[in-house]
Amino acid sequence: MSGNSLGLLFTVTSFGESHGAGIGCIVDGCPPGMDISVEDIQLELDRRKPGTSRHVTQRKEPDTVEILSGIYEGKTTGTPIALLIRNQDQRSQDYGKIVETFRPGHADYTYWHKYGIRDPRGGGRSSARETAVRVAAGAIAKKWLKEKFGIVIRGYMSKLGEIDIPFQSWDHVSENAFFAPNNDIVPQLEDYMDAIRKERDSVGAQISVVAENVPVGWGEPVYDRLDAEIAYAMMNINAVKGVEIGAGFDSIAQRGSVHCDELTPKGFATNHAGGILGGISTGQDITVNLAVKPTSSIAQERQSIDKNGNPVMMATTGRHDPCVGIRATPIAEAMLALVLIDHALRHRAQCGDVVVNTPRIPGKIA
Amino acid sequence: MSGNSLGLLFTVTSFGESHGAGIGCIVDGCPPGMDISVEDIQLELDRRKPGTSRHVTQRKEPDTVEILSGIYEGKTTGTPIALLIRNQDQRSQDYGKIVETFRPGHADYTYWHKYGIRDPRGGGRSSARETAVRVAAGAIAKKWLKEKFGIVIRGYMSKLGEIDIPFQSWDHVSENAFFAPNNDIVPQLEDYMDAIRKERDSVGAQISVVAENVPVGWGEPVYDRLDAEIAYAMMNINAVKGVEIGAGFDSIAQRGSVHCDELTPKGFATNHAGGILGGISTGQDITVNLAVKPTSSIAQERQSIDKNGNPVMMATTGRHDPCVGIRATPIAEAMLALVLIDHALRHRAQCGDVVVNTPRIPGKIA
Amino acid sequence: MSGNSLGLLFTVTSFGESHGAGIGCIVDGCPPGMDISVEDIQLELDRRKPGTSRHVTQRKEPDTVEILSGIYEGKTTGTPIALLIRNQDQRSQDYGKIVETFRPGHADYTYWHKYGIRDPRGGGRSSARETAVRVAAGAIAKKWLKEKFGIVIRGYMSKLGEIDIPFQSWDHVSENAFFAPNNDIVPQLEDYMDAIRKERDSVGAQISVVAENVPVGWGEPVYDRLDAEIAYAMMNINAVKGVEIGAGFDSIAQRGSVHCDELTPKGFATNHAGGILGGISTGQDITVNLAVKPTSSIAQERQSIDKNGNPVMMATTGRHDPCVGIRATPIAEAMLALVLIDHALRHRAQCGDVVVNTPRIPGKIA
Amino acid sequence: MSGNSLGLLFTVTSFGESHGAGIGCIVDGCPPGMDISVEDIQLELDRRKPGTSRHVTQRKEPDTVEILSGIYEGKTTGTPIALLIRNQDQRSQDYGKIVETFRPGHADYTYWHKYGIRDPRGGGRSSARETAVRVAAGAIAKKWLKEKFGIVIRGYMSKLGEIDIPFQSWDHVSENAFFAPNNDIVPQLEDYMDAIRKERDSVGAQISVVAENVPVGWGEPVYDRLDAEIAYAMMNINAVKGVEIGAGFDSIAQRGSVHCDELTPKGFATNHAGGILGGISTGQDITVNLAVKPTSSIAQERQSIDKNGNPVMMATTGRHDPCVGIRATPIAEAMLALVLIDHALRHRAQCGDVVVNTPRIPGKIA
Repeated sequence: MSGNSLGLLFTVTSFGESHGAGIGCIVDGCPPGMDISVEDIQLELDRRKPGTSRHVTQRKEPDTVEILSGIYEGKTTGTPIALLIRNQDQRSQDYGKIVETFRPGHADYTYWHKYGIRDPRGGGRSSARETAVRVAAGAIAKKWLKEKFGIVIRGYMSKLGEIDIPFQSWDHVSENAFFAPNNDIVPQLEDYMDAIRKERDSVGAQISVVAENVPVGWGEPVYDRLDAEIAYAMMNINAVKGVEIGAGFDSIAQRGSVHCDELTPKGFATNHAGGILGGISTGQDITVNLAVKPTSSIAQERQSIDKNGNPVMMATTGRHDPCVGIRATPIAEAMLALVLIDHALRHRAQCGDVVVNTPRIPGKIA
Repeated sequence: MSGNSLGLLFTVTSFGESHGAGIGCIVDGCPPGMDISVEDIQLELDRRKPGTSRHVTQRKEPDTVEILSGIYEGKTTGTPIALLIRNQDQRSQDYGKIVETFRPGHADYTYWHKYGIRDPRGGGRSSARETAVRVAAGAIAKKWLKEKFGIVIRGYMSKLGEIDIPFQSWDHVSENAFFAPNNDIVPQLEDYMDAIRKERDSVGAQISVVAENVPVGWGEPVYDRLDAEIAYAMMNINAVKGVEIGAGFDSIAQRGSVHCDELTPKGFATNHAGGILGGISTGQDITVNLAVKPTSSIAQERQSIDKNGNPVMMATTGRHDPCVGIRATPIAEAMLALVLIDHALRHRAQCGDVVVNTPRIPGKIA
Repeated sequence: MSGNSLGLLFTVTSFGESHGAGIGCIVDGCPPGMDISVEDIQLELDRRKPGTSRHVTQRKEPDTVEILSGIYEGKTTGTPIALLIRNQDQRSQDYGKIVETFRPGHADYTYWHKYGIRDPRGGGRSSARETAVRVAAGAIAKKWLKEKFGIVIRGYMSKLGEIDIPFQSWDHVSENAFFAPNNDIVPQLEDYMDAIRKERDSVGAQISVVAENVPVGWGEPVYDRLDAEIAYAMMNINAVKGVEIGAGFDSIAQRGSVHCDELTPKGFATNHAGGILGGISTGQDITVNLAVKPTSSIAQERQSIDKNGNPVMMATTGRHDPCVGIRATPIAEAMLALVLIDHALRHRAQCGDVVVNTPRIPGKIA
Repeated sequence: MSGNSLGLLFTVTSFGESHGAGIGCIVDGCPPGMDISVEDIQLELDRRKPGTSRHVTQRKEPDTVEILSGIYEGKTTGTPIALLIRNQDQRSQDYGKIVETFRPGHADYTYWHKYGIRDPRGGGRSSARETAVRVAAGAIAKKWLKEKFGIVIRGYMSKLGEIDIPFQSWDHVSENAFFAPNNDIVPQLEDYMDAIRKERDSVGAQISVVAENVPVGWGEPVYDRLDAEIAYAMMNINAVKGVEIGAGFDSIAQRGSVHCDELTPKGFATNHAGGILGGISTGQDITVNLAVKPTSSIAQERQSIDKNGNPVMMATTGRHDPCVGIRATPIAEAMLALVLIDHALRHRAQCGDVVVNTPRIPGKIA
């Protein structure tokens, strides 16, 4: 309960540092009897892994996962599933100079004051490398949600820096290095990123995630609202500075007569709510946006201080993502899956008996 | 753990419905030996209570709190503090017509499908009346944080519908009905709200909350990051659709060279991070914005369905806030206080021994 | 999470002191749609309440419960059920002399050192008066377990001091002041207790509890084993010093060939396991014994110290149970019910889908 | 939260099966800055490991632990410590015959009905092999408790079957294969065990554990009492059927005037309480006994059923401990250490400020 576990009933407990022996997690609470293979997990890991284009970090990590427990003859047994990803491409020497200083925008200063000690190799525990673990655990969650409820969870990049990315097709998302749902805009994105890299700078992004086919009734009423749990999960991703559900910040200037979604026998007329009312899913698409800040590691010289409080100038060289948002899409999908499976289980714990005779209206008007 | 408890070590467990016997909570984990009186709590409740201006609901609730336990001779004893607020102004008859139908934008439809039963009186458990409880519990948290660390937590309305409210002074916040930090703009806000009420419509708002003097080092590293816990807490407030920390959604279009706050011996040069790096407090002001949607209860006729799935037209009459954001400021302050005290306790549990010899740089440049 | 909540999914959070305004709890996670009335709860409270015979404390407490929330039109709604029992017969003056001293065998010394402050009125939070709350919450749990699974939870006194109480009939338990399953032995028990009271002394007891008709498969495999959770629950009852399941301490001298229960197509041949194997219920009766220590409050003079560490002699006068075990039976039943309902919900959360084609063998051989 | 995690603030989450790839755990919440090495952990593992005498299982497992994370330059960093023990001596062929049948006294039947699937290789997750993980985690807890508070946690075998083992000296415990605090009795124990093995039977044992130098004030007041948490922890050890604290079951026949420990300026006069009053430590030795049942795996033929409910006769051959109690001592010590460290952290979370001017009286009279 010291900040390395996620979920009440489908619980992921994570470990590992960027340049230690490896990273991994224990997934506890997975329903028994589901087929799961290394390939199921590896597929998702490969979507997040570094080194796949010039727009992301050039660190070479195959991110090969080993399943240590919890699976018997290809099926989950209901006991903990331990996953291990060994680190391969540690270059501790890259980080020697930062031992005595605090990189601006990073957790160096805060870890140091919290713990009085820190593993400086690649940011140690604070590195976004840890997010691979969530993608691995999320793959299991996604599979169960898909098989049992037909839930589909997909994300895409909706903004890169100043550039809005109009949605064209889900099919495009896997066809470019940006998770952009729009192949036409890709050359513009490439030029934009090339320029930023040339300036030795970085930039932010917005990721959007959607869950389709979520049943009505998931989420808790007061404090573990589904939207609150999603906000929590997303804000737990490195570099995320904002989360919104449905109309989000646009709600501020909306009138009630516009925002509030009418119900009709054929379904909800609109989805400003983003699929959640009173903290509980409505059966509509759950829609989430997250704001990802620009990478703090840039090669420009910046003011900082050392451990003695003396001023220093430092530039962060080494291998870094010029836009951490680019690899954030599979992570955000995983986080949404982890929240949903936890609430699926919580729902059937308390309300497993409930049979509602009222017709469930479709989430979307056909 | 069914969504009515908040916090790991300073835990608030809430109960009550809008038109039942009352609402209240148990605060568990409060450090012993702190002076606390009914007045300390009542003061905060009075800031949130209904009926204080024409811009909020006209329901008359004195919101008088009774302390049932946990205090001996005016001091906390370390045992659970139970708080009870009896409901006074129940008008169940106002709600008779909504028993068979689902109010658009409300939790009626989702509660019904989750539980198979719902208390329709004033929205039952889903009513924002429950937030009084958090304000009461938050008063205890605020007091401890203030006395022990000098932490000051204050909020204000930063946007009302389309109107931006420029910050002038904290002193103004308590001087108008909107929690606006700007008395000059109040006549404009009043006209705006009067027009919206006349149109039988409602509107959203943005609330900003700031915590000053938070020590460096609070928050957990991976999943219970301080910003994630704040996002969770805020999104658990009724009608909140978005949360951002520091630069928030503006980070998307920022460059790393701009966003990432430099450190100098005199302090951080800027605060785009909003006081949190790597999930852990930096010692700077923690700054949070939340988007509050327009009230769903409006007196205009809207499409909905009844329990049999038949179309109905319904207008929500009765006593409602035309902008729920107006009373949200003390609630948001309370939620931030509750998150901070929980992490204060978590910090000293794990790291109580830590002595860091490095100078702590001030949050702001003097 | 500061020791006043019990259960992960059916969670009871308790508050209150012996001589404060009252005691009570919030029951969170109760499945929706169950009929529950004040009478259902009062019935159990009346079994535990003081003043019903000369063998228990003469404090007069009607222990009248008020339901503050969570019930609508006589049914649980799935939202928190708050229960309040106002204290009636506070006699704080009885306790004036113990403010500065520590009663031997009580929590005075430990509370003082833990919290630096304590409510000395009747032991404050450490009083067994708090157990009324568990009996109230347990009544709800018992009802659900009975209605949904036919589970019957019953307890009785199996030893009073040196006297073994042979089991004759469940019917006898409600027919005497001792919860003895044996009316013949009651005169002997009465004489025994009268003598102890005359000696101004107290004595211990053993309580046995049985749960019948528990399905196979409840309990967790490694750390939240059903037997571990039962041991935890029982040891949380004031004055309990030991817990055993099935053969318990007799297992030490048993051979494996004797202890280990054979399975036959007609059922288990024996039940040394007490209905739990590998932490999971077998479908047999769950059988538990608990050792209750003698009341520490006795009217004999005893050595103690005051807050300054000076020696004092003190006798605890006032109204006390000469054998706290006598009223422990309904408490132990309640605790077992609370553990079982929590695991019922946990089981269906993770394994709700499981269909086992293997015949479930009966718990007992017909 | 599905039964594989222990502790609120010092949390051990365990994984692994008897004949899978390995076993291990994540220790979360360890205070930062403590020296810890593989040797510190290995030392404790070696005390529990199999194959060290003819009186325990002949399975050959070196139980070599690898630290995967959480340690930097030999010190804990406050981030999760992941431990991995690869299985070496898997002999899955030994277990082929039990796939279709349920071993009496084992968890086969209950796992099958709970999960609908089970890993039959050596009992899978239900194997006591998992306890190695606790010993490893417990080594970290023990070290911190020792260094910070001087706490010493030691256990011994106090009964083997019908044989009482009188306490002679702590020094003897490490000098014989039984953890007996009495070398003189060892030949008798050896003969006893040899006879039982010859009869192809097994026998139970009693283990006693003592924690010295625990400060006053650890433990929670109502539900997470220190004794309740100890009972929970111990009953979570495979084969444990009973737990008692202090006088335990002997309290039943004790008078209050005997049981209740007097306080004097020089210390407590006696320790029937076992170092805990009102759920909170007194500063005296914490004393715990646990009853361990006889091993269920015996080579005698026993009645059972197969998955179709048909009767079968089965004898469990293979490599088994004839008395699982023999290797239970280090496990019980580890469990006590894990409970104590968790409450040490919980104590300083809530009461870190408390300064009590009253003299703390010694646990023992000098």
